Amino acid sequence: MTAREAMPNAYVPGQGNLSEGDAALVARRERALGPAYRLFYETPLHLVRGEGVWLYDAAGEAYLDTYNNVASVGHCHPRVVAAMAGQAATFASHTRYLHEAVLDYSERLLATVPAALSHMMFTCTGSEANDLALRIAREHTGGTGIIVTENAYHGVTLAVSGFSPSLGPGVPLGEHVRTVPAPDPALGARTGAVFAAGVQAAIDDLTRHGIRPAVLIVDTIFSSDGVIPDPAGFLAPAAEAIRAAGGLFIADEVQPGFGRTGAGMWGFARHGVVPDMVSLGKPMGNGYPVAGLILRPEVVARFGAKGRYFNTFGGNAVAATTAAAVLDVIEDEGLIENARLTGAYLAEGLRTLATRFPALGPIRGAGLFVGADIVDGDAPDAALTHRVVNALRQARVLISATGASANTLKIRPPLVFARDHADIFLDRFETVLKALS
Amino acid sequence: MTAREAMPNAYVPGQGNLSEGDAALVARRERALGPAYRLFYETPLHLVRGEGVWLYDAAGEAYLDTYNNVASVGHCHPRVVAAMAGQAATFASHTRYLHEAVLDYSERLLATVPAALSHMMFTCTGSEANDLALRIAREHTGGTGIIVTENAYHGVTLAVSGFSPSLGPGVPLGEHVRTVPAPDPALGARTGAVFAAGVQAAIDDLTRHGIRPAVLIVDTIFSSDGVIPDPAGFLAPAAEAIRAAGGLFIADEVQPGFGRTGAGMWGFARHGVVPDMVSLGKPMGNGYPVAGLILRPEVVARFGAKGRYFNTFGGNAVAATTAAAVLDVIEDEGLIENARLTGAYLAEGLRTLATRFPALGPIRGAGLFVGADIVDGDAPDAALTHRVVNALRQARVLISATGASANTLKIRPPLVFARDHADIFLDRFETVLKALS
Repeated sequence: MTAREAMPNAYVPGQGNLSEGDAALVARRERALGPAYRLFYETPLHLVRGEGVWLYDAAGEAYLDTYNNVASVGHCHPRVVAAMAGQAATFASHTRYLHEAVLDYSERLLATVPAALSHMMFTCTGSEANDLALRIAREHTGGTGIIVTENAYHGVTLAVSGFSPSLGPGVPLGEHVRTVPAPDPALGARTGAVFAAGVQAAIDDLTRHGIRPAVLIVDTIFSSDGVIPDPAGFLAPAAEAIRAAGGLFIADEVQPGFGRTGAGMWGFARHGVVPDMVSLGKPMGNGYPVAGLILRPEVVARFGAKGRYFNTFGGNAVAATTAAAVLDVIEDEGLIENARLTGAYLAEGLRTLATRFPALGPIRGAGLFVGADIVDGDAPDAALTHRVVNALRQARVLISATGASANTLKIRPPLVFARDHADIFLDRFETVLKALS
Repeated sequence: MTAREAMPNAYVPGQGNLSEGDAALVARRERALGPAYRLFYETPLHLVRGEGVWLYDAAGEAYLDTYNNVASVGHCHPRVVAAMAGQAATFASHTRYLHEAVLDYSERLLATVPAALSHMMFTCTGSEANDLALRIAREHTGGTGIIVTENAYHGVTLAVSGFSPSLGPGVPLGEHVRTVPAPDPALGARTGAVFAAGVQAAIDDLTRHGIRPAVLIVDTIFSSDGVIPDPAGFLAPAAEAIRAAGGLFIADEVQPGFGRTGAGMWGFARHGVVPDMVSLGKPMGNGYPVAGLILRPEVVARFGAKGRYFNTFGGNAVAATTAAAVLDVIEDEGLIENARLTGAYLAEGLRTLATRFPALGPIRGAGLFVGADIVDGDAPDAALTHRVVNALRQARVLISATGASANTLKIRPPLVFARDHADIFLDRFETVLKALS
């Protein structure tokens, strides 16, 4: 597998049907940004404007965005932009001075989690949040072993890329990292027990090698493993297993958090577990680089006694004010309820399509995070998935693929996605399925 | 040494003379943010507004900021805020779509470095930049050994905190990390040879342990080691030594970069070296979380062939546009020249004071980055330094301390610092010295 093959929907230079102007931009990227950057699509997109669930290219064509979860309350939401600009024009400095904004925000966010989780720490990215979680867990547990799912993605620092196997075989795993099979929803009620058995086997293997387990960390909707939300509750036995081994259970909420599942603010809540740490990122500032950790106080006691944590931009007044505006919009526009209702409507529409198109396999979803497998009989069909993603781009719908077999359509629009948008998506998707399958 | 003692100028809870309102904020911080956060000063400051080189507390009192280097073109600069808000209202998305902003900025910044450095990669923080530099260096060199100075600070990821000894003895160093004595400017023309000999000894020790050297990374103004700019050129022999051993030389420009030294844009240029990688951060977006790496293309070739790098917020259209506005202000307001002239004026004023106050020892500086030692005879005087920093806070001047002995005043104002501001600083500093020494 080449490095480009390891990423679903990566542009391959020299292919595609680019305008002269876009080809020039691609050439400038290669010269200036170098070989590690990737574009999406067979023919990359040149975007210039965003509003709500729509993105616009340089020619003014509108694309329905069913992919980008960062602009969670809608692209360029005016309330969020105004809050950010207002604070940036007033005071922007860091957490070594007293300021209300970071406290108001923290207290407000902590009110959305179980009472056992009572501290909050700020970073700029989800990668930094997961990296900090590991530093804290190593101090608390005295262990170094890390357990993740086989196609997990948790970020890009040296430590975190080492437990993000979805980055592909060219990116080394850490020596104390063990991977376990992702939960298999086909097992139904047995999903949790089987997943926990995999986690226990990894714990045993770490122990056999003299490595003390530190953490089990999972994206609570298993986005990169193919979107696995159900049966709700399946996480509890695995969390128990890691704790029984002296490790911590970390819920990575960078993708499912902030209301996306439609079942409250957090993906872990669907599973009836209270994590030891919860990592936050992407949608937290609707694009402003703000992220963080929510923690049980006992797990950070030793870390805080032995050292300090300062992140120059983390929790600055602009970050906190911007993130608070995102919470305002989620509440005032009823976006969690919308995720629940529109998500159910969208999944139902997809299930109806699946009855007519055999290439469309199982639909899994929670709120506005839906995975739809593309199959050839019982087998995953990555090639057809790739054609579907690119045909949808031609039909002006943005989407991507995920999963270890790269055959799961990842449908994850901004949370302001309404029924009308779902109808547009379903209509264009049907046209693409008719043409391709 | 306790964790709080490891940080110069850290607030110790229970001390100080807080208003009832500020005491309540401190209590809220402890409850919400937990034990790893630190405030500045014996009595923490509650700030609410910033403009140019001034910060204002809740009572409307103005503080002259001679410390904060993030707001490098001045707190809340209206041009930077307007550029950020304008782009955020238009299009804010990431580097997997084509967009001009990230290319325009990269090309412009790359024009400020030697031609051998022709690629640019984007992160959100300096920590992420140094962490990425290490990932790239490990791929390129096949080595894992890291050499830093004894009181270096490079960031807070697991890997980077492992080569940031200034975080204190409670934060573990990485097992392949070796520390070397910081350059000693008292050695004059021999500074470079002695520093390189220390680096060579670390290379030999790594090799003796079967560890292949990967990087020598230094802050090119050695901020946390006590601000060591001279004699210019002293870095060249150490850079040669690490390269001869198959490793890379990384210039951490998070603190000296973007014009602060007054001798061009970059601290490394004063030393006549061309690094293999250059890391960027703090002042790059005047407070917006944007950072990155500039690289020789050959060092990232293997990393890019084996894997990809994507940082969700890194290099997004708002980050690039905001950072471009910072470059506009640096150019249009002549801030590099101002750093050179005002910095020289400030250093000269300090040297004049030093002739009258024996407690004020050697003054070292380049542009608007000045270190001034506080001494008792020939010995560092950390206790008096602490009193000076806090007395200046009472006199409404913000400053901090640095260095392995915590006896170096770190004078590092926004680059819009003018002669008038230097006069205010020198006047208040003289009053403090009279009262305390």
